[in-house]
This record gives sequence, C-alpha cells and structure tokens, in this order.
Amino acid sequence: MESLLEETRKQYPPKLPKIIQNAVTFQLKDKIHISDPKIDAVFTHCKENRIAYCEPKQSENPVLQHIGVLFSGGQASGGHNVISGIFDTMRRNNPHAILYGFIGGPIGLIKNQHRILTEKDINAFRNTGGFDLIGSGRTKIETPAQFESACQTCQNLLLDALIIIGGDDSNTNAALLAEYFLSKDLSTSVLGIPKTIDGDLKNQWIEMSFGFDTATKTYSELIANIARDASSSRKYWHFIKVMGRSASHIALECALQTHPNVCLISEEIAEKKLSLQDIIQLIVDVIIRRKQDGNPFGIVLLPEGLIEFIPEMSNLIINLNSLLAEGRKPVQNYLPPPSKKLFSSLPHSIQEQLLIDRDSHGNVQVSRIETEKLLADMVKEELLKRKESITIMTHFFGYEGRSGYPTNFDADYCYTLGCTVTALAREKLTGYIAAVKHLSLPCEQWVPIGIPLRVMIHLEKRENRMKPVIKKSLVNLSINPFTTFAKQRKEWTRKTSYRYPGPIQFFGPEELTEKRSFTIKLQEKKK
Amino acid sequence: MESLLEETRKQYPPKLPKIIQNAVTFQLKDKIHISDPKIDAVFTHCKENRIAYCEPKQSENPVLQHIGVLFSGGQASGGHNVISGIFDTMRRNNPHAILYGFIGGPIGLIKNQHRILTEKDINAFRNTGGFDLIGSGRTKIETPAQFESACQTCQNLLLDALIIIGGDDSNTNAALLAEYFLSKDLSTSVLGIPKTIDGDLKNQWIEMSFGFDTATKTYSELIANIARDASSSRKYWHFIKVMGRSASHIALECALQTHPNVCLISEEIAEKKLSLQDIIQLIVDVIIRRKQDGNPFGIVLLPEGLIEFIPEMSNLIINLNSLLAEGRKPVQNYLPPPSKKLFSSLPHSIQEQLLIDRDSHGNVQVSRIETEKLLADMVKEELLKRKESITIMTHFFGYEGRSGYPTNFDADYCYTLGCTVTALAREKLTGYIAAVKHLSLPCEQWVPIGIPLRVMIHLEKRENRMKPVIKKSLVNLSINPFTTFAKQRKEWTRKTSYRYPGPIQFFGPEELTEKRSFTIKLQEKKK
Repeated sequence: MESLLEETRKQYPPKLPKIIQNAVTFQLKDKIHISDPKIDAVFTHCKENRIAYCEPKQSENPVLQHIGVLFSGGQASGGHNVISGIFDTMRRNNPHAILYGFIGGPIGLIKNQHRILTEKDINAFRNTGGFDLIGSGRTKIETPAQFESACQTCQNLLLDALIIIGGDDSNTNAALLAEYFLSKDLSTSVLGIPKTIDGDLKNQWIEMSFGFDTATKTYSELIANIARDASSSRKYWHFIKVMGRSASHIALECALQTHPNVCLISEEIAEKKLSLQDIIQLIVDVIIRRKQDGNPFGIVLLPEGLIEFIPEMSNLIINLNSLLAEGRKPVQNYLPPPSKKLFSSLPHSIQEQLLIDRDSHGNVQVSRIETEKLLADMVKEELLKRKESITIMTHFFGYEGRSGYPTNFDADYCYTLGCTVTALAREKLTGYIAAVKHLSLPCEQWVPIGIPLRVMIHLEKRENRMKPVIKKSLVNLSINPFTTFAKQRKEWTRKTSYRYPGPIQFFGPEELTEKRSFTIKLQEKKK
Repeated sequence: MESLLEETRKQYPPKLPKIIQNAVTFQLKDKIHISDPKIDAVFTHCKENRIAYCEPKQSENPVLQHIGVLFSGGQASGGHNVISGIFDTMRRNNPHAILYGFIGGPIGLIKNQHRILTEKDINAFRNTGGFDLIGSGRTKIETPAQFESACQTCQNLLLDALIIIGGDDSNTNAALLAEYFLSKDLSTSVLGIPKTIDGDLKNQWIEMSFGFDTATKTYSELIANIARDASSSRKYWHFIKVMGRSASHIALECALQTHPNVCLISEEIAEKKLSLQDIIQLIVDVIIRRKQDGNPFGIVLLPEGLIEFIPEMSNLIINLNSLLAEGRKPVQNYLPPPSKKLFSSLPHSIQEQLLIDRDSHGNVQVSRIETEKLLADMVKEELLKRKESITIMTHFFGYEGRSGYPTNFDADYCYTLGCTVTALAREKLTGYIAAVKHLSLPCEQWVPIGIPLRVMIHLEKRENRMKPVIKKSLVNLSINPFTTFAKQRKEWTRKTSYRYPGPIQFFGPEELTEKRSFTIKLQEKKK
C-alpha cells in the first residue's frame, strides 16, 4: 500500500562528492583563533581547534565497531539519509558493524533506549522525510546526572562514536558531552550534524543546515499557488506566516522564490526599531496603493518569530512575564504606560493569547501567538479608519515542510554528512561537527570537512545565567541574500510579479531537480 | 525571472485521445428520457436530448470564426488548458479565427468586457494553474436584463459559440442561456465545461470535473507531510480541514491517499443522523485507544462542509437565520430548547462566529466557521472530563490546491475538453457540456462526448422558489470509492499506516506522472 513515489524514492542513490566515494583520512590544519579565555576554561580537555580536511587514503583503518545516533529537536527532511550514510560507511569495510539508534531523541541516550538498525530498517527509510525511523525529542542533556547517564550508555554499548543530529542547542550539547567524555577518559567520540529547517545554524564554516532546502521549496510551492489564486480571483489578501522561530531565513528564501507584495524580515524590523503601528501602516499603504492601481489583492509574508523582534512587543512580553511571575492580577493594570497602551491596542483574541497561554515556566508562549491574525485584524481596523475594507485570509505553514521527501539536494547533502561524520569518527576526532563546503556547486565538487564545535561557541545569557552556546545566525542585512531581496521588493509591492516555482521535482531536467536555494546561491556572492 | 518549472511546463504538449487528434464530427444517439414535464417546460427551444458521440471525418467544416470563453466561480487547475485547447482547435483550419476572453467571469459577458486572446497570450499560460489569463468571478446571470445583455454581447461579437467553464450553477446558467438564445433566434451556441475541485459536478455521463485531481494531490502531499511529522515527534494530533463546500469527495480521496486515523464524511454523518457529541465521542475514543497503544498522536481529516450535514447543527443555523431576520436580540434566548442547548455547548469563539459573521443576506456564513477548531476545542474539553489532555494543531487546506500547476492528468483532460467543446461548437450543438469517458484508461483511449445539459437538470428549492439546477453529486455511501474507504478505516484508527504520496511529479516513470486518483479508479469498479 506504500505510494509509488515512496517506492521509487527509496531506490534513489544519493550522489556523493568524489573525494568521499573512497577511503579518506583527515588532515588537521588552519587553526581557528578563539579570543575568549572563558571558552578555553569550558573546554579544558577538548582542545583541538583546527579544521579537518578530507584527503584520499589507500585503506580505511581502524574499523568502526559501534556507533550510536540520535535525532534532537524538530524534524527536518533528510535525517534518514544521514543515518543511511553512517550505516553504509560503517558497513563498507566491516559487515559486522552495529549502528544503534536512540529512541525518541536525547532521552533515549539518557535511558539507554535504543534499537539496532538493520539493513532492512535502513532500506525502508532511504530518502524519506521525517524522523520516524527512531523518533526525536526535545530533552536537553543538562544535569550532571544526565551527563553521567549518557556516559554510562556509551560505555555499556562500547560506542566508538555518538552522533547527534540537531540544531544549535543540540550541537552545543554535543560539544559539552565530548568535553565530559574526555574528562572521564571515555573513548567515545561525540560528533554533530547541522540540522534545522530554520537555517540559523550557519556560520563561516557551515553554509547551510539540512532541511532548509526542502522546507522552503515546500512553502514556496504553497505560497505561489495561493498567489496565483489571488491574482485569478483578484479580491483577497492572504497573510502567510512561515516557520522560523528566531531568524527570518525561511521567509527571505520564500520571498525570493515567489515575489510576494510584502515580506517582513524580523531582523530589519528590530534594526529599524519599528513599532507594530509602523508595520501596520507599511502594509496598509501597499494595500491602498494596489487598490488604486486596480489590484485589490495581494500576498503578505511574515516570519514566525516576528513578534519578539518588534522592540515594543518584546518589551511588553518581558513585562508580562515578570508581572505574571509576581502573581499580579489583572496583570494589564500593572503594565508600565507604553506597554499598557500597546496591550490595549491589540485585538481581543491576541490579548487572551498573551494572558492565558503560558508555558511550564509561566511565560507567554510567543510561538502560539497567531501573528498572522494579529496583523490581519489590525490592518483591517486601520483600513476601516481610512474608509476602506478588504477580505484577508490567514495561513501558517510549518509542519507541512519539515517532514516531506527530501529534495535531491537535501538527500545528497545528508548522505554526504553521514559519510563524512563516520569518516571523522574513524579518525577518532571528537567535539567536531560534519560540514560540507561549496554547496552551490554540483555535488561531485563538494568538500566535506570537520569543524571543532568549540570554535562556534560563545557565552550568552540564558535564563539569567551565562551559558556556552552556539550563536544563532540571523539574517545579515548588509549582505546577500537580503540585499538582493531589498533591491527588488519595491517593485513587487505594485507590480504583480509573482513567481511560481511549483512542487519539488525528483525527475526531469537536472537544472530543475538539482537547483539550489537562492540563499545558497546568493550568499556565495559578494555584497 | 520566471521559474524553471514554469518555463518547462509551458513546453509540455498535452496528450489527446486518438480520435480527436484529427477532424471529427458528432453522431447524436442514445436519447435520454426525462420524466419530469416541468423540465420540458423550461426548455421549449433547446429540445435535443441525445448524446453526441465523436466520429472521424474527412474535413472540418464549417469553419469557426469567433468564440467567446469565460471562467465562472472558484479556481481549478487546468482552466488555461481548456482555453488553449479551444484556441488550437479553432486555429487549426482557420488562422484568422478569433477567441475572445471575457474578463472577470460572467460580468465580463454581461458588460462585454473582453480581450482578444493571441497566440502569445495562450503560449504564456499553457499548462499553468489559476485563471489569471482572463480572471474569474461569481456573478450569476439571473435577471432578464442580464440575459439580454449577454445576448447582446454575443450578437455584437458575432460569436459562433460561447463557452462557459464552471461548476453546477454555471452550467445550469449555460443551459438557460442556450434556451434563451434559441428563443431569440440568436445562432450562438452555448456550451459548458465541467469545472470544480470539489468533484461534485459528476453523474452517469461526467466521470470527473477538472481540478479535482490537482487539488487532491496537493492536499494529500501536505496531509502526508504532516502525518510523517506527527509519527516522528509522536506528541501532536493534527485536525486538518480540506475544501469541499458540500460534498466530501475531496476528503474521501485524500483519506484513500494518506490513511489518516480518522476521516469524517459529511454524507455518512447526515445519513446516520450523528450529533456533534457523537462525532466528538468517536474521535475521543480513537485518541484514547491510540494513547493506550503507545501512540499519543494522530491525524483527523474533515470536509469543509461538515457543519451543515450534522442535523442538529443545520437546524441551529436555520433557527439562527430566521431569528436574525426577525431582529431578535439576544438571539440565543429565542432558540428552541434543543438548539439552545447545542448553542450553549459550543466554544465561545464558535458562538461568536455564528452570531457575528453574516453574509449580505444576514445569514450565518457557514464557510467561515472554523470547524477544525470547533472539533479541536470540544475534543480537548471531552478529554479533560476523562482526565486526559493532548495538543492539537489545526489546519485548513483550500487555496493551496486550486491554482497549482495542473497534473498531467488535469493538463491532458482540460486540453481534451477544450478540443471537444470546439468540435461541438463546429457542429452547431447548443446547451451541451463537453465530457470525456474512460478517464481511468490512458489518455489515448479516452472517448470525448457531448451531453445535453437539460438532461442533468432538475427542480430544486432555492431561496424558497423551485429552480432548475444541476444536482450536486454527493458521496454515495453504498458504492466505491466510499466502500473501499469504509473497509480500511478501522485499521487506520489503531495502526499507524500513513501513506506518503509526495509532491506532484511531472517527469519520471509514467506510472507516477500519469497516475489516476483513487476516486477515478475505484468508481469504475462495481460495488
């Protein structure tokens, strides 16, 4: 009863960079300077800070016996290919190698809940989306007891390496585990894989996290379908929110793919210190101008994380959180005047979301706030003041794009990451993350590397304590791809110049099946 | 700046049934018996009730000079291919033939707002989604003045034929226009094309309306992506509403494609006279059972039209509408006891939607009611009573699927319909709708036919008056595809057996690019 596409995709042989198709070793060079001595104090055992470059080698030794792998955090397309890359590379010169999959994320490691992944298991999940082979979870390895349990599990299973497939926090965890294992004289390497559809685990060494390509192509298909619908019926505005908790990389890529009339970029709003009213005015002006031009329809794209980047909204939320913690009721009466004024200007449903939906720490759940509806309601209200009215449809695309069949790019990239991380394990490197350079080129020319995680870590205030973390990469407003977007967007507001990328294609002309995201292509270009 | 897929798709040559690749004529046979004399009274000029069967012919005469075409109602993928089929067929033996496109739907006909469609226009829209070449609209041609204006336009433009691409109501309009034109001795043929993603313009002659295939494949891609996400994170229930105002054909097809844990079929709920509480209990039982099995996640699929098929809800709405018309306030106090009880059991937000959102006639806007949230809220409440709780995400897929690139099936089908309707026009048939038989077979074996619209029309009470209309085709519970669904669904509730059809593919293995919907395949089979 499996679908024909599933059957077909499972047969797809992921492409690999030439160099890693055969036995490789790694040369350590290009020492990365870390200026913060506090970071050195965190990593007293895990000291290596040179990049690992792939080189051909005659034979592969030593042989790997046992590896453990886990998914951490939200789904991203291609995860199963990381695992199949690890499996195939291990088995290539040791048919008895065992790959353990920890069930349900980090908790599986802590509790040593695992399954041994067989050839049959792997074959059933090649090139499929989701993380359902072993599941994922959001538990963080934080307490000393958790560190010790993780250590025990690796020791019991005689793991040569533990591979953590996750985002910024999970890779921070990988670095700290590597340090801990060394301090305990445990020989298990801890290695990371850059995963997140948000695209914010990115820096001078990591060009892109996996899953971003599939997610943005899926969202862009849908946004463009809606845009075509809007320009056919010519009577609706669609406000479309796309996932991306902090950074706006997803919204930016989707905008470059589809040319919406307005696309908000959180980082720009923060930099320009725009108020909620500023944003409403900006949208309303476009709506009225388009109406005057005879185009009473349009598309507004916005990133999930928007709210926290609007300075006054972020202040309001901070104020609400501390008042809620103090147990003040009714909380809105205790807000300082600017926050109070802003609060009372919000639609009733949003006020309720701010007051009622709280997480386990009693904080406002920003991700639950329906920003697309907030903007829609306020835009309609502002239009009424100007004696205008429109019909707005709201949409939120998130789960739709995290677990689809990986594009050829994500399938190849993830398989390459899996092969690379296994090769790093064979070299007994620890505290490294696998990465691939030159992703804009054809796969054959990609360059697999290993980066010491410690060089990406800095100290950041989290829950009132300084913690070592990998910095999230936000959209840089002074370079590409943002600058290309900024150059074109004015035209998009008035001209209806939607672009229709269509559904992801796995077959057909290579330019189509292998096409890179605008983000990958443009970030290679100079400013 | 056009996308590569758009460029590539425009080059796609739609496939055609063998018979219609060359000159054809039509044989009228198989007289259809109409038992209702009232229908005969409506159509005193348009009397033909034989089916038109395609036959090869040596040469095509007479030559067509002028055709007018319009879109009516909501978008459906493939509309542009109907127009390119008309254009290519007209031009084949008359390079000077003129195709007029009426702008913005029926209103363009009434006001004679048109554009002449050139080869360049047509080429820019081949195999694209949406109706943006000429736009669409929902104006109905109802008043004598509107009939007269339509007549005038056709006369002024010397139209050989007027082709209306629309759903059940629009094709009823086509039949009445044909009758009116004959009564006025106007020689313009009026012909229809069966369009609607809902799949409810279907009967013993019309196997499927166009757009259904693309819409259901798009929704199924998304539902399956979400299902994969749910079975990876194993902690969310997703309640997904799909378009389909009356019939549940879309939900049924998507269920067969993706195997959700629960799929509600409005027609079954009406037949079994289920209450809202019955439905909630049904869902809650599945949720609790799955949790006991260790599967605290799942997918519930529901059709947009659900509300009006729940007898008690439909009564409530009727009661609200008449009380609102009488101006009673607060209206809920005047409801008869069963409706009052039901109303007070509804979540606050839904009560508000029932009371506030009204259309121009003051009626409750059923399509605006967020049924997916209604069910989610009530399910959560019921679970609380049983000391259980879950996180539910809600989704609504509609606009995402109406204007995407047509599948090869819809592209071929629509082009064939365009060629067929032009051939019908050449034979001076009027009051006919173009159709294609044997859609489950490869395109080459399809059989283009023409059906007199009058044989599909019956009298129905609309706004308190008996009106001639084409009957909407609801899901038939005693035959396929429903019976196949009904056989499998029990297993889907407990076993996680999601099916992942993936995004629409335009290239690759033929079984993949040409695959038919389950609805098409199963409705051919016997019960």
